[in-house]
Amino acid sequence: MALQIKNGLFITLEGGEGAGKSTQARLLADALRDRGYETILTREPGGTPGAEAIRHLLLFGEEEFSWRAEVLAHMAARCDHLDNLILPALGRGAIVVCDRFHDSTLAYQGYGVGNASAERLDFIMGARRLVAREPDLTLLLELPREQALERLESRGGRTDRYEGQAEAFHQRVLTGFDTIARAEPERVKRINAGRTPEAVSRALLEAVLQRLDQTASVSGA
Amino acid sequence: MALQIKNGLFITLEGGEGAGKSTQARLLADALRDRGYETILTREPGGTPGAEAIRHLLLFGEEEFSWRAEVLAHMAARCDHLDNLILPALGRGAIVVCDRFHDSTLAYQGYGVGNASAERLDFIMGARRLVAREPDLTLLLELPREQALERLESRGGRTDRYEGQAEAFHQRVLTGFDTIARAEPERVKRINAGRTPEAVSRALLEAVLQRLDQTASVSGA
Repeated sequence: MALQIKNGLFITLEGGEGAGKSTQARLLADALRDRGYETILTREPGGTPGAEAIRHLLLFGEEEFSWRAEVLAHMAARCDHLDNLILPALGRGAIVVCDRFHDSTLAYQGYGVGNASAERLDFIMGARRLVAREPDLTLLLELPREQALERLESRGGRTDRYEGQAEAFHQRVLTGFDTIARAEPERVKRINAGRTPEAVSRALLEAVLQRLDQTASVSGA
Repeated sequence: MALQIKNGLFITLEGGEGAGKSTQARLLADALRDRGYETILTREPGGTPGAEAIRHLLLFGEEEFSWRAEVLAHMAARCDHLDNLILPALGRGAIVVCDRFHDSTLAYQGYGVGNASAERLDFIMGARRLVAREPDLTLLLELPREQALERLESRGGRTDRYEGQAEAFHQRVLTGFDTIARAEPERVKRINAGRTPEAVSRALLEAVLQRLDQTASVSGA
């Protein structure tokens, strides 16, 4: 008998590479299940077969797309993920934990671009408003780029991707996440990801339980 | 030495099946070229490799997409078509003749759906506003469904697709085009497509030349 939350609770984890999002998303989902909540763990890019197919085309297809086409195709994939997985789960009162969502699009495809114009950011935000569903709570795992690089190096096999221009890109992405967190402090909670996995995990769970206390109507099902 | 139009002229041909759009688009492009205008003839679905790839996925992929994902993916394809073909052509002062565009999305994916909700029409219109570029002139080839069916039958090999439910769909599509034309009489010119191809062609060319007289700044290049 799972606990149900009226309208569900939609949590996203965001942050740069190497901040530990995937591990922490799994630990958070496990902890919430232990407490009796039906919890869906999902991730972007991907989440549903339709979304995977669109993203496969974007990432591995031979065609070049205009940046507007690329943004809209990503949003199409996100819509499929929302409509076929996330919204039905929220509708039946579950918690959804999603590894990356809207903020990653804005950080990577918006701010990450060196010459990110107001036109580009506006277009992404316009598409985001169309898709409509914002997370109830976003946990931003923050880690200075130097520490993230150390972690990525210790995982092995990744360092050669991060030379010159790519490094500047990742710095812009982190600045983008910071800008997003400043703009929406209610939704976006900053989490110091430079601690042990256990400490980070506790901090995430605490933030979620606090949000549940504040806003959610929980009942036994 | 082609004639150039300031900001170009973007013409779309719309209408149901069997109204003769493809033939008339070709005849119109030829007539405009004969008069000295650089004229790009293109069509949707398709138009660019990226747009073709997205639509191939939608039409022939094994995945099922939510209707919102499908609309956004079509719009992504359209953005690629606009950004990589149509807008550059308009920018250099050409005339673009496009066989089907925004109005077909609204008529087929919006009004064509039996239970087309305000939510669905609003979503399509929201995506359309995001994509932003409206045609300067839309030529709506109108033909009663009975005459269109006769033409399709005489082409051969198509009649078996038009049974029961499909027939109601096509009627709703025609009603959708009619609704669109009523809402935007300045942009959308109704053309009686029940005449000989030569007569229809003359009517289309006349409508375009009239629009050029009214609005366009033409100069020799």
